[in-house]
Amino acid sequence: MNPLAELLDANARFYAAFNARDVAALAALWDDAGPVACVHPGWRALTDRHEILESWRAIFEGGGPARIEARAPEAFVIGNHGGPPGGDTLGMVVCYEAIGDALLVATNVFRRAESGWRLVHHHAGPCNEPPAEATSTPARGPLQ
Amino acid sequence: MNPLAELLDANARFYAAFNARDVAALAALWDDAGPVACVHPGWRALTDRHEILESWRAIFEGGGPARIEARAPEAFVIGNHGGPPGGDTLGMVVCYEAIGDALLVATNVFRRAESGWRLVHHHAGPCNEPPAEATSTPARGPLQ
Repeated sequence: MNPLAELLDANARFYAAFNARDVAALAALWDDAGPVACVHPGWRALTDRHEILESWRAIFEGGGPARIEARAPEAFVIGNHGGPPGGDTLGMVVCYEAIGDALLVATNVFRRAESGWRLVHHHAGPCNEPPAEATSTPARGPLQ
Repeated sequence: MNPLAELLDANARFYAAFNARDVAALAALWDDAGPVACVHPGWRALTDRHEILESWRAIFEGGGPARIEARAPEAFVIGNHGGPPGGDTLGMVVCYEAIGDALLVATNVFRRAESGWRLVHHHAGPCNEPPAEATSTPARGPLQ
């Protein structure tokens, strides 16, 4: 797989872990070699890895949404322009999170570790004017 | 300056450019060597540099907020763990945007270019439970 496909795959695994309410899978995805941050919709920014994982656990236990469907993901590889192969590289995915009839827009930032793309930041918030491809079930997408 | 201080400085310059309604200063800050993205509060994600700069111009011309005060910024350098000095490095700042009595939470992602930190992503959205240090004018901060 090329880096963009791997990035979309990591993004899909993030939402699959959410939908499975699998804190261990989230822990495996969140980077453990450096700083991480997380902004749940409307929340303050969490910047402690333990606090972030506990927040997901609290969301699962507190009757958070049963399912997030990630739609219209766009992936970007950043930070290795002209650099050596294998150099540190960051990736970002922007996508839409369909939760029932509600739609959020999300930023997910990943760091390319030896073990693959690891999540370093998640930020989700309301989206009032989504693009057309985010408002209906996509014809293609990693979570189909 | 160390990378974290430079990152906070770049973040402060972003909000200074906003407050000065200076599209040229924003253009100088937004990366022009790779992908960029921008999520204004409630908007869909913009992923075209020209469209992003035009969106700021439209916000300035359309009576957007007169002033954003960035509060409680936290900076993170990511992506060069154990790598060579001078290797590609990404940075993130999470901060709060005070706009009158309203408070947003923002993610700003930067790439370390030869010319300094360049903005590759901005995502701002509502914050309903800000930390105490974000709800009052901070005792210290890059925009004072």
